[in-house]
Amino acid sequence: MTHLPDWLTRRAALHPHRPALITPVGTWTFNGLNLWAEHIATRLSALGVRRGDRVAVLARNGPACVAAIHAAPRCGAVLAPLNIRLAPAELAWQLADCGASLLLHDTEHADVAAALRSVPQVALEALGSPPPDASAPIADRVLALDAPHSIIYTSGTTGRPRGAVLTVGNHWWSAMGSVLNLGLRDDDRWLAVLPLFHVGGLAIVLRGAIYGIPVVLHERFDPAAALAAIDHQGVTIASLVAVMLQRMLEVRGAQPFPAHFRCALLGGGPAPRSLLDACAARGVPVAPTYGLTETASQVATLAPADALRKPGSVGQPLLSAEVRIINAGRDAAPGEVGEICVRGPTVTPGYHGRPDATAAAIRDGWLHTGDLGYCDPEGFLYVVDRRSDLIISGGENVYPAEVEAVLLAHPAVAEAGVTGVPDPIWGQAPVAFVVPAAGESPTETLAAEVLAFCRERLAAYKCPRSLRFVASLPRTAAGKLQRSRLRELL
Amino acid sequence: MTHLPDWLTRRAALHPHRPALITPVGTWTFNGLNLWAEHIATRLSALGVRRGDRVAVLARNGPACVAAIHAAPRCGAVLAPLNIRLAPAELAWQLADCGASLLLHDTEHADVAAALRSVPQVALEALGSPPPDASAPIADRVLALDAPHSIIYTSGTTGRPRGAVLTVGNHWWSAMGSVLNLGLRDDDRWLAVLPLFHVGGLAIVLRGAIYGIPVVLHERFDPAAALAAIDHQGVTIASLVAVMLQRMLEVRGAQPFPAHFRCALLGGGPAPRSLLDACAARGVPVAPTYGLTETASQVATLAPADALRKPGSVGQPLLSAEVRIINAGRDAAPGEVGEICVRGPTVTPGYHGRPDATAAAIRDGWLHTGDLGYCDPEGFLYVVDRRSDLIISGGENVYPAEVEAVLLAHPAVAEAGVTGVPDPIWGQAPVAFVVPAAGESPTETLAAEVLAFCRERLAAYKCPRSLRFVASLPRTAAGKLQRSRLRELL
Repeated sequence: MTHLPDWLTRRAALHPHRPALITPVGTWTFNGLNLWAEHIATRLSALGVRRGDRVAVLARNGPACVAAIHAAPRCGAVLAPLNIRLAPAELAWQLADCGASLLLHDTEHADVAAALRSVPQVALEALGSPPPDASAPIADRVLALDAPHSIIYTSGTTGRPRGAVLTVGNHWWSAMGSVLNLGLRDDDRWLAVLPLFHVGGLAIVLRGAIYGIPVVLHERFDPAAALAAIDHQGVTIASLVAVMLQRMLEVRGAQPFPAHFRCALLGGGPAPRSLLDACAARGVPVAPTYGLTETASQVATLAPADALRKPGSVGQPLLSAEVRIINAGRDAAPGEVGEICVRGPTVTPGYHGRPDATAAAIRDGWLHTGDLGYCDPEGFLYVVDRRSDLIISGGENVYPAEVEAVLLAHPAVAEAGVTGVPDPIWGQAPVAFVVPAAGESPTETLAAEVLAFCRERLAAYKCPRSLRFVASLPRTAAGKLQRSRLRELL
Repeated sequence: MTHLPDWLTRRAALHPHRPALITPVGTWTFNGLNLWAEHIATRLSALGVRRGDRVAVLARNGPACVAAIHAAPRCGAVLAPLNIRLAPAELAWQLADCGASLLLHDTEHADVAAALRSVPQVALEALGSPPPDASAPIADRVLALDAPHSIIYTSGTTGRPRGAVLTVGNHWWSAMGSVLNLGLRDDDRWLAVLPLFHVGGLAIVLRGAIYGIPVVLHERFDPAAALAAIDHQGVTIASLVAVMLQRMLEVRGAQPFPAHFRCALLGGGPAPRSLLDACAARGVPVAPTYGLTETASQVATLAPADALRKPGSVGQPLLSAEVRIINAGRDAAPGEVGEICVRGPTVTPGYHGRPDATAAAIRDGWLHTGDLGYCDPEGFLYVVDRRSDLIISGGENVYPAEVEAVLLAHPAVAEAGVTGVPDPIWGQAPVAFVVPAAGESPTETLAAEVLAFCRERLAAYKCPRSLRFVASLPRTAAGKLQRSRLRELL
């Protein structure tokens, strides 16, 4: 089994005075953050946390949450970050499912936590911070790559969520695959506006310690604050979802981004062509990426230089991942759609306490993602859709993302979601939900115009049967469109 | 067991037209080099090379040698690169020791190879290159990290050399440790003037494929050519030994290095303070490093920014390595000299066919390097000397490197080597060998002056008993001083 020195401890020894964490409420150096993590680890041990125990965290993005993320592995504890947008019953279910022995929460969620009485709980704030005269721990802590690091719940295709176990090694290899793709510069600073309870946010915090670069952390996404961090705090890379980047461009207007900003890592779903075009026109470098909780984030990422040459692609697999497209039990030809399967050291060993789900998802070492896609002859991956969202109409497959991309290309459309509704003749039929662009009135005339726009660009069976204007679309806390919830809008 | 996609194949898919190898005789793109490696792999298989077979290589640095290095793992063959400066009897011994089933050689070494009749052999040139209409192999080759990749012979403290086995994973982790220390930029190009049969040269070729950056390869070290590569071919990083950098500075004179040159990675022994000062004065960024064959190159590397703050240090361990200093069976305190021990995923699994030497060197997972050093309170490593070179005089330890550093500080001294000679009273006594600086006459007067200079700066028992001027010092092909051969100069 391979061991590595604790990343943050080592970085604290190497760059003690370099900023590690920059937040609106304060800045911590690598030494300061390391001492804080050590302090929390000591407190967790005193609270009875032992190797292998699950420690759940219910908190909005904040510095104490980051310190706790670095602290847990030092006691051998497994992190179970919880989505703060869940209902109490859902939280109770996840706490029980992962068998958490302790719940850490922030002040904001004290009331919610109090209702979850079955698990002992401590406020993050109550863990305190190290005394000002604390000295740094000796750099002798080691991390076993095979040890479980975190359990992150994902929505499966049906039923209850499943807790994907991610090992220390899964996260490490993910960081390695990313650095070999995006590079690493002395002046890099990574913006974290995604929630840390999702893998995309957690990965930023871990990369910060592994790479020895500062993380600029925001409590929540605010387009003006994100732009200010880029302009005035030297952010060079930001992990974003499309709707965030879209809003940043709207706030920005024509003003260019600074030259040091070298990458908007764009995940959480397909990047609309209109957004890529708008970024290209303003010189904003965009790297669309495809990742999953089960792969500790990125599987494939498109280089900004290829963004316009390969519109709609998420690039080639990172060096830490192999990708196969499997259709009807065999490898698909270039251009042929099939299920995206992933193998490599970033793939989860399985779902916590769910050998059935694990065996169904990971076969012969390949994770069957349930996502549909194809590779072009140059090996660039295109994600067509989530299989569970597939609409089958008259025997023809309709991929909602494809229809949404057309809707989003209409200038009056700000956001779009497509799902299937039952149809007595064709089995299913697609319907569209649209958030109009600023200044557009949601009239019948506009709906007819947008549908006509679709008919010009799509086969008849792919065109939405109807179009409804809505004020917002259902999204996860990470900003990902929840197509499965679109029908609730009907 | 962890598998990764073949690095070069993956990079060829990602950046087919990017230069991968730049030599005086031609430039190969990643696609071109990948096709060449695939062609050679096919030829090797046709010649009967099977998984686990050892393939020895006897060649000066050149493009076919690089292609062969990338080809061998594709047949599961283990590379055994041979030092072209060895005598035929030594080569025959190493071929037999590693059980090579095939010897690849270049034209220059055809005669030497012909004398080694016991092993089937093929000229690298006879393997040919792929037809111009060849298409790229599908990116489905995988490398097992646990598989042996190469066997590299090192001189032990006594007796015959030992073949250190390096796995694919040893090389991979070394490249990861390096990138997390030195970073990775889009415009990086690495200069290889070290021989590829030493780990320092081999590591450059492997990093080039892993990082997807061009390697600028020279047949041999020439200071003017190395400078030209930096000035006109965009070299950003160069792996050098001290004597090479010294000669480059001499040729360069006062002319500054270009701004894109960001790192002289300086290994193969201690970096003289005078050299570090000269580099600082000219703004040449230097990263002194400590590495071994047994650790697939770098263990610790000093950041250029710390070069003057920590003169004489080789920096902190890379993230892929843990270092302990052991003295009299226990961990040494900061500042206390002891044996440098290394643990981590870059450490060799052992010496080929030498369980005795392996068990002696690797105990409880820690490689006992035989090198002496200490860590300062901030964790920066200082290499004091090779234990095998230790001179014990009157019960006092004399570290040749320390005496050499003083000699090198004298303006009339260009190169210096110190070793011990038997002494009837004190057991051993140090003697010095000196290459005078350009324009200096090797007179008795100068010798007396240099020795007086030493007496001013060293304890009496450390001062050389005698000083001989010589035209050159015995060095390995990598430029490392061979102290054990100094006595031959007497």
